[in-house]
Amino acid sequence: MKPRFSIVALSATSQNDRVLSIASQCKEVLSNIGIKILIDKNLSKLKSKDLSVSSRENIISKANLLIAIGGDGTMLNCSRKFGSKGIPILGINLGNLGFLADIDPKDITSSLLSVIEGKFEKDERFFLEGSIEGNKSRFLALNEIVVHSGKIAQLIEFSVFIDESFVYRQKADGLIISSPTGSTAYSLSGGGPIVHPEVNTILLVSMLPHNLTTRPLLVEAGSEIRIELENQKSVLSFDSHENLLLKGNSSVNVYKAKSSLTLIHPQGQDFFASCRNKLGWSSSI
Amino acid sequence: MKPRFSIVALSATSQNDRVLSIASQCKEVLSNIGIKILIDKNLSKLKSKDLSVSSRENIISKANLLIAIGGDGTMLNCSRKFGSKGIPILGINLGNLGFLADIDPKDITSSLLSVIEGKFEKDERFFLEGSIEGNKSRFLALNEIVVHSGKIAQLIEFSVFIDESFVYRQKADGLIISSPTGSTAYSLSGGGPIVHPEVNTILLVSMLPHNLTTRPLLVEAGSEIRIELENQKSVLSFDSHENLLLKGNSSVNVYKAKSSLTLIHPQGQDFFASCRNKLGWSSSI
Amino acid sequence: MKPRFSIVALSATSQNDRVLSIASQCKEVLSNIGIKILIDKNLSKLKSKDLSVSSRENIISKANLLIAIGGDGTMLNCSRKFGSKGIPILGINLGNLGFLADIDPKDITSSLLSVIEGKFEKDERFFLEGSIEGNKSRFLALNEIVVHSGKIAQLIEFSVFIDESFVYRQKADGLIISSPTGSTAYSLSGGGPIVHPEVNTILLVSMLPHNLTTRPLLVEAGSEIRIELENQKSVLSFDSHENLLLKGNSSVNVYKAKSSLTLIHPQGQDFFASCRNKLGWSSSI
Amino acid sequence: MKPRFSIVALSATSQNDRVLSIASQCKEVLSNIGIKILIDKNLSKLKSKDLSVSSRENIISKANLLIAIGGDGTMLNCSRKFGSKGIPILGINLGNLGFLADIDPKDITSSLLSVIEGKFEKDERFFLEGSIEGNKSRFLALNEIVVHSGKIAQLIEFSVFIDESFVYRQKADGLIISSPTGSTAYSLSGGGPIVHPEVNTILLVSMLPHNLTTRPLLVEAGSEIRIELENQKSVLSFDSHENLLLKGNSSVNVYKAKSSLTLIHPQGQDFFASCRNKLGWSSSI
Repeated sequence: MKPRFSIVALSATSQNDRVLSIASQCKEVLSNIGIKILIDKNLSKLKSKDLSVSSRENIISKANLLIAIGGDGTMLNCSRKFGSKGIPILGINLGNLGFLADIDPKDITSSLLSVIEGKFEKDERFFLEGSIEGNKSRFLALNEIVVHSGKIAQLIEFSVFIDESFVYRQKADGLIISSPTGSTAYSLSGGGPIVHPEVNTILLVSMLPHNLTTRPLLVEAGSEIRIELENQKSVLSFDSHENLLLKGNSSVNVYKAKSSLTLIHPQGQDFFASCRNKLGWSSSI
Repeated sequence: MKPRFSIVALSATSQNDRVLSIASQCKEVLSNIGIKILIDKNLSKLKSKDLSVSSRENIISKANLLIAIGGDGTMLNCSRKFGSKGIPILGINLGNLGFLADIDPKDITSSLLSVIEGKFEKDERFFLEGSIEGNKSRFLALNEIVVHSGKIAQLIEFSVFIDESFVYRQKADGLIISSPTGSTAYSLSGGGPIVHPEVNTILLVSMLPHNLTTRPLLVEAGSEIRIELENQKSVLSFDSHENLLLKGNSSVNVYKAKSSLTLIHPQGQDFFASCRNKLGWSSSI
Repeated sequence: MKPRFSIVALSATSQNDRVLSIASQCKEVLSNIGIKILIDKNLSKLKSKDLSVSSRENIISKANLLIAIGGDGTMLNCSRKFGSKGIPILGINLGNLGFLADIDPKDITSSLLSVIEGKFEKDERFFLEGSIEGNKSRFLALNEIVVHSGKIAQLIEFSVFIDESFVYRQKADGLIISSPTGSTAYSLSGGGPIVHPEVNTILLVSMLPHNLTTRPLLVEAGSEIRIELENQKSVLSFDSHENLLLKGNSSVNVYKAKSSLTLIHPQGQDFFASCRNKLGWSSSI
Repeated sequence: MKPRFSIVALSATSQNDRVLSIASQCKEVLSNIGIKILIDKNLSKLKSKDLSVSSRENIISKANLLIAIGGDGTMLNCSRKFGSKGIPILGINLGNLGFLADIDPKDITSSLLSVIEGKFEKDERFFLEGSIEGNKSRFLALNEIVVHSGKIAQLIEFSVFIDESFVYRQKADGLIISSPTGSTAYSLSGGGPIVHPEVNTILLVSMLPHNLTTRPLLVEAGSEIRIELENQKSVLSFDSHENLLLKGNSSVNVYKAKSSLTLIHPQGQDFFASCRNKLGWSSSI
């Protein structure tokens, strides 16, 4: 049978022994069935005389699949770097079963072979994109974009507009703007609901709001969200990764990005099973 | 100019003096511009020698628009009776500005004339439909369907499935299954988020759950939700209106109904303005 | 050594095989060291020619300790029946480690012998007492007193006064008035905080309140709480056990009872360990 | 009649026109009835040839009452500076009616005269005191002590002990340790309950906890709370005023301070009236 993915890239965020051992195992399993391997610079220790490190551009132009080895943080990183450019991502999870990465290291060989044979499920996720008025840069987040004071226990005051309609003016430690993918991450800590990945929505969850009437708010994912701050310092944060300093009057736009992410799951993957496992839904008082 | 609605029905839930006075005013304003009026049996006191009461069927087959006079309860009632059969509904609100009914009694004449001239906005809402295994009846709810013990402070235990995937097993006083329209009603009291009507989702909000890990859950509106109860008495409630008794083992299905509701709003209507007004979003600690 | 408890009563709420087997074991262990045993009528199957069933009055007048065999429900029952009359209660827990009953059935012999030798900790809990204006009866609750509509998804409207000061008027499905002991029970499902048993407070937690500004409210335990209902049917419930029907205008008073409960715990008992165990505090997302 | 307070100090946090105008009015009203006035350095613009600025020490040793002019922030400041040294505090509130300061600027003359004549209510509040192991300094907070990462959306991991018993280990943005006085401040934004000032308790409220099982926890006010952090940077904050940087392994102790605050209120003051006014308790959906 012709494999579904003929060129597979490997990536990670750290190169500790466990990650390297799993990466070697992936390389071996895949090479044995004739698949060409590319390695990201974050796995440079894996290089040998017949395997050199590939640039990000090279991986993006050639790979049919990228395997991310680590936890959900590694998945976020690889999603922004490679997934947003159209490379499907498969995650091997080194922590507990994750919401994004769901191959158990114990099952690598059989899981990889199944996926390569075509036994997998595709799962499309959208990115949020954020921009600041007067700045041409665009930033992506898979989970959430957060506007905050940069200091805990310090308020910012902001106004929110959805598609140019005024929503509210609010004092809070910050505002989390989350995708459904992010609904099981920071937004959940802030009191947001759990949203199945197929719901086409963006969540607005205030952090320690200075009033009693704020509730998590969900709007259609095609909405353009604008946050306006007057004469204040604040920080704009993308997946807790990229942080931009805002000063004076600022206007931040957040919306669904055009690029999306294709996650590859072994067959039988199930969002609700991840919830039961990760969120302890089976337990009762 | 040719009016957009040539036959308009009037309905209400009670016939007190205020309702009758407003209904008379509507009749007069509309008759004066040549619109034919039908009256629902709930407004029988309005009948005269040239205006008889119309049956529900007659209204459904003839009216281009129904004007509901009352609060959100009247809107729910008219929505199920007439709206679900394709008659657009315009609400005159006798309480505070409502989420569904938004014509202020003080502005009836100008608002009605504007709407009749075509200056209005359409707002599509979906109904939830519920059925019980082994029973051919189908029931509609615009806001929410609730499964509960029928008694407060008494648990039921149930399992939830989404599109045949097991979600969780839970003990709680009950479960609220809400549309976005219902997200500002009972679901909100139960801790659910506020969901803009355009988001295509169904909310599951547990009532006083007997565990700490339950959170409001939102699934795509095309999902089929099944609640299974074993050997328990419980009550199934539709918009707090229709109540069915469940016994023994029961299996309840809830899904987006095929019929939808067209709400007619005066121009400039805005969901967020209703939120600010009704939910006190302008207030701060 | 002289035992600390020379006459010990045994009680339960059901007489299934497991309960009877544990009760027999208790009887044997205690008889062997010369302690006199009394059995409650709920353990009548345990009677033999030298062991007859004792009346409640007899147990109250003679026993130095009562052993309750079951879960937290059995503990609540024995607490009201015997504990409120001054008999210390020791619980053997047949479910998971409980908040009230904390002897593990596997350790009965050693735990009982330790307790009898004086190796135990006393834990004083207060009862709530409730009365209805115009009715001389007084009712006790160890966990909570609930005023509610008697039907789920049906509002009651009530006013709350603390020591004659007006607090608020509110629409909700009901109101939970809880002791610190009850803070890990129904109040917790309603969104109340966890309160260490030594805090001298009473909690007011609204059930599905019809507004956004209600929060759990804690008042000093010496406060007199009054709930006033006008022209409404409602139900007053004590530990989900005793249920009284209220009609028309009613005024309910709730306050700390004079009688208190002495729980006996094996040494090393710890409220926070019960929390970690029962509430899953060790788990993380 | 002999006035109850013969020497009265005036303080504020800013010296804008409104504050100075009210301070002058206070000075005049009190001087006219023979009361000696002291002014804090924050009101230096009020000085004249017969009224010099007093040092903090001078005020503490001589004044029988301090009038704080401003909002709750000014009250917090004056409470720590003067109230903790035994000077009763009366607040004139320049914002909305506050939880601490409750004299309306419109009623200054009559309110002051009433208070001076002895028509007032005393309200005792306790301070929290915090210390860091290895550091002899002690810091006071009237509302809350917060341990946090110093950055939003960044976790700290900490263990909590109450009177040497382990409570839980937790990841969160931070932990708010609040007095009942602080229960209507930052703790409320974090999801904490409202606690009447007479309840003798300390609240622990986690900020955006990274798990689903955390709830606000209330312990007896005599408890010693210890927070342990290993190898982490964090910030310890007292009433959002004093901020200490913690590094490496740190151990923070928080407990009820020996000093307490006497608030002076005009007669008829009522905690619940402040709640209704400030928290919007009269509003409903």
